[in-house]
Amino acid sequence: MIINILSLETLTSKTQDQITKLYRQLNADNKQRSLFEILQASNNVSVFAAIADDCVVGIAILSTYKVISGYRGMVDDVVVDVSQRGNGIGKKLMQRLLKEAKLMGLDEVFLFTGHHRKPAISLYTSLGFTLRKSGLYNLTIN
Amino acid sequence: MIINILSLETLTSKTQDQITKLYRQLNADNKQRSLFEILQASNNVSVFAAIADDCVVGIAILSTYKVISGYRGMVDDVVVDVSQRGNGIGKKLMQRLLKEAKLMGLDEVFLFTGHHRKPAISLYTSLGFTLRKSGLYNLTIN
Repeated sequence: MIINILSLETLTSKTQDQITKLYRQLNADNKQRSLFEILQASNNVSVFAAIADDCVVGIAILSTYKVISGYRGMVDDVVVDVSQRGNGIGKKLMQRLLKEAKLMGLDEVFLFTGHHRKPAISLYTSLGFTLRKSGLYNLTIN
Repeated sequence: MIINILSLETLTSKTQDQITKLYRQLNADNKQRSLFEILQASNNVSVFAAIADDCVVGIAILSTYKVISGYRGMVDDVVVDVSQRGNGIGKKLMQRLLKEAKLMGLDEVFLFTGHHRKPAISLYTSLGFTLRKSGLYNLTIN
């Protein structure tokens, strides 16, 4: 199993199809933004893909931005194929993501996950993430 | 009082100084990233400034990025001058920010705030934000 950072230059429709199916395991109903859109240079986002036997078996996305309080990363869309869970793929994806975050010079990486998602919380805390005393709020715009 | 979106072209050192002092009210100890760095075109961030009598009396920052699950905005660094609180400046800043978020075509706007920050929570929920059943986790990198 290897971890690749996807790029627009090397993205194939086969990879897009595999990720579309994989992401449906995380959320079957949500409209998905395409990787061709996400990987545009103007979008400061890195897509990490775990690949085994020429198949994408896991992904994680790191988005970055600078504000007064720091140079920040947000982790979204972390998913590992249901048939491959328990093999440490999520951990390897996140370790690679955090290595890149360090190389980029980020001050801090944030993520949020449902209070009921115990295996995800266990993974993130094992990597050093700590729960903040903050509430996460959202507003749907369109 | 007017709300402006700051740009690198019109940014002055006077505005930077005013915002540096204003932001210290939110966090006196944190290292601050400069607006000259934040307003670079490659950083997808809009800085909203409330201006009264030629002084910046409030700011809010919207950062945007696209991932598979949507086109997202994160709100950070919301601060209103302590002498001006209770005058609806925070609400006007956020209303302008949300208007721009809609114009940009964002799917969703996120923010987080300390569970103890009752006036902030009251403002955000009055604008339609809802608390998610998720925990926010962070990891300091550098």
